[in-house]
Amino acid sequence: MPPKLELHADRLFPADGSVRAIARALYASIKDAPIISPHGHTDPAWFAQNAPFGDATDLLLRPDHYMFRMLYSQGIALEDLGIGPAKATYDPRKAWRILAQNWHLFRGTPTRMWSDWVFAEVFGMTDMLCAETADAYFDTITDKLGTDAFRPRALFDRFNIAVIATTESPLDDLAHHAAIMAENASGGWQGRVVTAYRPDPVVDPDFEGFRANLDRFSQITGQDCTTWQGYLDAHRQRRAFFARHGATSTDHGHPTAQTANLSARDAAALFDTIVAGTFTAAEAELFRAQMLTEMAAMSLDDGLVMQIHPGSFRNHNEALFHTFGRDKGADIPMRTDYVHALKPLLDAYGNEPGLSIILFTLDESVYARELAPLAGHYPCLKLGPAWWFHDSPEGMRRFRQATTETAGFYNTVGFNDDTRAFLSIPARHDVARRIDCGFLAQLVAEHRLADWEAAELARDLTNGLVKKAYRL
Amino acid sequence: MPPKLELHADRLFPADGSVRAIARALYASIKDAPIISPHGHTDPAWFAQNAPFGDATDLLLRPDHYMFRMLYSQGIALEDLGIGPAKATYDPRKAWRILAQNWHLFRGTPTRMWSDWVFAEVFGMTDMLCAETADAYFDTITDKLGTDAFRPRALFDRFNIAVIATTESPLDDLAHHAAIMAENASGGWQGRVVTAYRPDPVVDPDFEGFRANLDRFSQITGQDCTTWQGYLDAHRQRRAFFARHGATSTDHGHPTAQTANLSARDAAALFDTIVAGTFTAAEAELFRAQMLTEMAAMSLDDGLVMQIHPGSFRNHNEALFHTFGRDKGADIPMRTDYVHALKPLLDAYGNEPGLSIILFTLDESVYARELAPLAGHYPCLKLGPAWWFHDSPEGMRRFRQATTETAGFYNTVGFNDDTRAFLSIPARHDVARRIDCGFLAQLVAEHRLADWEAAELARDLTNGLVKKAYRL
Amino acid sequence: MPPKLELHADRLFPADGSVRAIARALYASIKDAPIISPHGHTDPAWFAQNAPFGDATDLLLRPDHYMFRMLYSQGIALEDLGIGPAKATYDPRKAWRILAQNWHLFRGTPTRMWSDWVFAEVFGMTDMLCAETADAYFDTITDKLGTDAFRPRALFDRFNIAVIATTESPLDDLAHHAAIMAENASGGWQGRVVTAYRPDPVVDPDFEGFRANLDRFSQITGQDCTTWQGYLDAHRQRRAFFARHGATSTDHGHPTAQTANLSARDAAALFDTIVAGTFTAAEAELFRAQMLTEMAAMSLDDGLVMQIHPGSFRNHNEALFHTFGRDKGADIPMRTDYVHALKPLLDAYGNEPGLSIILFTLDESVYARELAPLAGHYPCLKLGPAWWFHDSPEGMRRFRQATTETAGFYNTVGFNDDTRAFLSIPARHDVARRIDCGFLAQLVAEHRLADWEAAELARDLTNGLVKKAYRL
Repeated sequence: MPPKLELHADRLFPADGSVRAIARALYASIKDAPIISPHGHTDPAWFAQNAPFGDATDLLLRPDHYMFRMLYSQGIALEDLGIGPAKATYDPRKAWRILAQNWHLFRGTPTRMWSDWVFAEVFGMTDMLCAETADAYFDTITDKLGTDAFRPRALFDRFNIAVIATTESPLDDLAHHAAIMAENASGGWQGRVVTAYRPDPVVDPDFEGFRANLDRFSQITGQDCTTWQGYLDAHRQRRAFFARHGATSTDHGHPTAQTANLSARDAAALFDTIVAGTFTAAEAELFRAQMLTEMAAMSLDDGLVMQIHPGSFRNHNEALFHTFGRDKGADIPMRTDYVHALKPLLDAYGNEPGLSIILFTLDESVYARELAPLAGHYPCLKLGPAWWFHDSPEGMRRFRQATTETAGFYNTVGFNDDTRAFLSIPARHDVARRIDCGFLAQLVAEHRLADWEAAELARDLTNGLVKKAYRL
Repeated sequence: MPPKLELHADRLFPADGSVRAIARALYASIKDAPIISPHGHTDPAWFAQNAPFGDATDLLLRPDHYMFRMLYSQGIALEDLGIGPAKATYDPRKAWRILAQNWHLFRGTPTRMWSDWVFAEVFGMTDMLCAETADAYFDTITDKLGTDAFRPRALFDRFNIAVIATTESPLDDLAHHAAIMAENASGGWQGRVVTAYRPDPVVDPDFEGFRANLDRFSQITGQDCTTWQGYLDAHRQRRAFFARHGATSTDHGHPTAQTANLSARDAAALFDTIVAGTFTAAEAELFRAQMLTEMAAMSLDDGLVMQIHPGSFRNHNEALFHTFGRDKGADIPMRTDYVHALKPLLDAYGNEPGLSIILFTLDESVYARELAPLAGHYPCLKLGPAWWFHDSPEGMRRFRQATTETAGFYNTVGFNDDTRAFLSIPARHDVARRIDCGFLAQLVAEHRLADWEAAELARDLTNGLVKKAYRL
Repeated sequence: MPPKLELHADRLFPADGSVRAIARALYASIKDAPIISPHGHTDPAWFAQNAPFGDATDLLLRPDHYMFRMLYSQGIALEDLGIGPAKATYDPRKAWRILAQNWHLFRGTPTRMWSDWVFAEVFGMTDMLCAETADAYFDTITDKLGTDAFRPRALFDRFNIAVIATTESPLDDLAHHAAIMAENASGGWQGRVVTAYRPDPVVDPDFEGFRANLDRFSQITGQDCTTWQGYLDAHRQRRAFFARHGATSTDHGHPTAQTANLSARDAAALFDTIVAGTFTAAEAELFRAQMLTEMAAMSLDDGLVMQIHPGSFRNHNEALFHTFGRDKGADIPMRTDYVHALKPLLDAYGNEPGLSIILFTLDESVYARELAPLAGHYPCLKLGPAWWFHDSPEGMRRFRQATTETAGFYNTVGFNDDTRAFLSIPARHDVARRIDCGFLAQLVAEHRLADWEAAELARDLTNGLVKKAYRL
């Protein structure tokens, strides 16, 4: 007999009975609130075209770097999971069996928790995933995915998503967003899917294909993107285009949080070097730094909220990158400075009441030391939620414990699921809600907060702050 | 009806019933111990002159950077709070209302906890601060502050303060301390108010007015403070003067913990460069570093305990600094190294049994990694309590959790309130006592400590260690 | 009446009653499992010769840097504890009394916990160590140590040690291991004592006597260790020799985790500079870095598991080092980077399924930020347990909390006692077992793990993972 799959009603609440009772009551008051997903990586084509998702492996394993990185770390070949150039030859059922046989590896991880929710709540599984149940899982999930109730829009509606943001490059034509908006307007499907402006491919000189991207940027915008003014105008134009497709934010995934504030003349000269391709590593870094400040200036004009996601050493595994490409679970966090790095931008625009910058980090040592003090002072700064490797029960607890006393709750912005794993979105928001309610319950139990205040905060952390911060 | 203001008897104790019972008993045994405040920033004029404190805003809001930095971070203008050049035009009642309307911002922060104590215990308020109660708060507090029972000395006595240290520049004439000591001696008010020697204005070449300060230093001491020997002698002289005014400690607020041990010749040459004003940033840093070692040498002679408070990026917000000046909530912690930085000083004097150096940090990542190992070895080193942004319930817990296993309790020095917010001093000590008792209770509950040991430690952490460490 | 010495059955379990019950049950299922000690510093001569251990001070105080560093930090002279050049003149009973009088310093430290176990379980003491019981302790312990039941082999058997690894230099002749193996083979004592290859004395150019060590290395191996090829061949030869004496691992105690992958030509040239003794600090660092990669290459060939223990600033107290030598409690952790440092080695061999590298750290800020993400991706990397200053209840909890969500449990390797304090080995393993069971119980109580999974994990964390990771 395989073990039972159970989602306990009290999961993730503090173990102490009196605290748990408070957490349970807080959670009951917000658990059914709609999902607002202001930052993530779902594919807008899903919602525009509403095609079925494919088989279990194709939807749940192959695109999920949390899953395959753990399997890879234990010596399992990516090719056997259908990842990489040899995809054509793999067997999705066999790949799924590998996952099932190794499901114990995920004990204690958020992947386990999100997946169990998907298995139980989305697909109605009642036994745990294991070697014995592998085929039943594969068949049940694959079968259901073929039915209308499991198409993207049906799930979107079932998940009670009020709005979801995707993330696109300036080179994207946003055709899927346009199609969805047209359908919204014409009284068809009412799901709200907005974009966000992620200019890394034309801002980061080290991005694959950067120079060709610039040419494409020129083509799309009609600007000469080999000149500094043309390039900046192209950004302004595309930002406006993105805003018309629902974008309320931009997003910047730089290696560091470095900003710069060069004179217009120096910036133009630097840009020439970048365009010429003769730049050093330091010049590439300086250009990215300058562009954060340029983006802040544009945000002041057009009102788009800036998100900065720094500190990931992308594609750390060189051999893997060459064979399998980007996003294969080999991005590793680095120590990240914000105090010195952000100063040029803050010196320029830090006191602007109209500017809003949401900071993220993969370096938890900066929560209490740098980020909370910065956000607890500068009017333009807010703190994004625990991110990526730290988007987990312990990670979220550390975030609240380390930031609240200096930045308070009201300099934070609610939860981001930040995922392409669409089916797990409700599970991710649920984890955040449970952890936040547990944290608030702890404060109530220690008499640091009145119960009615905790209830108000639970609502603010779930829906209030995210709407305000992202101008949604 | 406004919500009630309640200070629960069990606040800040661990939620678990059995641990809480232990914490409660420990706390009962030390809660009424006198306050020993070995480091802080109250104004000695208050105690020398005993004038009334003014209105609610003037005492509780305008000087409190914890309060106004949070309000500023949410877009409230400092001018509206009576801060900055436009002070004359502001309305204290309106400023107070702004605070009241935004009181929710402080949920989960120590400011909220300290203030609630002041409101309830000092002023007898029974409703929570909110828009509805703003005027009643302002009037009640302002009225009471006009009565004799709320003058500085009356509160000092009511707060059961055994001794308080203020912090002065070498350029200060200590007239207020002299007046208090004279009154002490003549059988008048018996409050003990001592000074501490904080030479940053004449040690840090980057301090505003540094060069003019040196001239004033010469004037006061009769030494030629443009020569290395005259300058060192001036320090010796002022340290002795401070010691005669009760000082048992010095305090050093450098950007980093860097120390240096130059030859006398090199130090003198460096000093010439500093005096000439032709120094580089590296030379300024080296001079500060050298001066820590010089101060340690003087401490060996005169017995003053050294405190080092490194790691704050002062006045990070340039525009704000230019308009509003220092100490406006824009000091941001930085990553701080101690292992390499302190080595020159420790190589010189680290094994001296007569030397005592108390280390503080704004970088919690060094607690377990650097500070506890250093203090758990070097006879001259002790660990100051959780400081500034970390002087909070969670911050204090992290401090004990991270330092105790390597440095033990007896290489720590009790609590510092480190504040200019006089009325909150009992609240701050109370928070520290509650958190320490909770931490000890946890150790007892986990059978890591006997109950009688925890009781002894509670007394040591409250009064024993601070007296010994600060030679009070 | 001295206070009683009690080892509570529930010590170190979470305080909450329901969590504690789960922890207690998990612990009951693994507490009697044999001890597997894959990395440590016991002396193989003890087990080869089986001579009595000497007096209480000689066994328990003088060699224990955790103990004497704490005493030293409080102003007690090392000479009075029988440490240093003046050893001949000290009185072991007086030294023991000093320890007893200062036993309160260890409150809240692991030393207290390990020692109490040794006192109670090994020696049957029933009163706590204090001034009053000092002599009784000294006499009882010293007397018992003179009896056969307290000789090394008797204690080894009594402690239920399945296998213990010691750590030797390539210059060691492993005579004690050979003697033990011969006795094992001939049907005598069956204790399994293996060695580990720790080449720092011939790999680290800054090691005391490095150049002379190279000559000795040549002598022992018959290779010309002043040539790069001869030097590498000497390593290969000694590694094989160590493997024949039971070694399954190597160990590398570098100041940093830096690795390098020079061309053979550049490596040979660097080696010439090292041998010539004309190297800079940077060249010494580069050589150590290169040697980690060379060792990884050899591990691929001979299957020895690599352990990297970086980040200790050895002999930080210069004066103490000159008078008393190495390992006197003055090693201080430093901030340590892994993401950039390990890349050259990982680029060369990171995806080799046959390679196994166990990473340790003294810098806890890297647990969640660098180590868990690296080990959660690279097939060759595993995480060693909380090390040295962090081998403590709070330290172990932080390790699990910070690493599990990203690396899972199965990229960790069980516990290392890493000690020369032989009598405390069972206590150290017991602390680890209790903390792990408490951590698992917390996950079960929060419904993040099923109870049967926690039971399986408790077994894996105790014996399963260590056997697999160390190939024992």
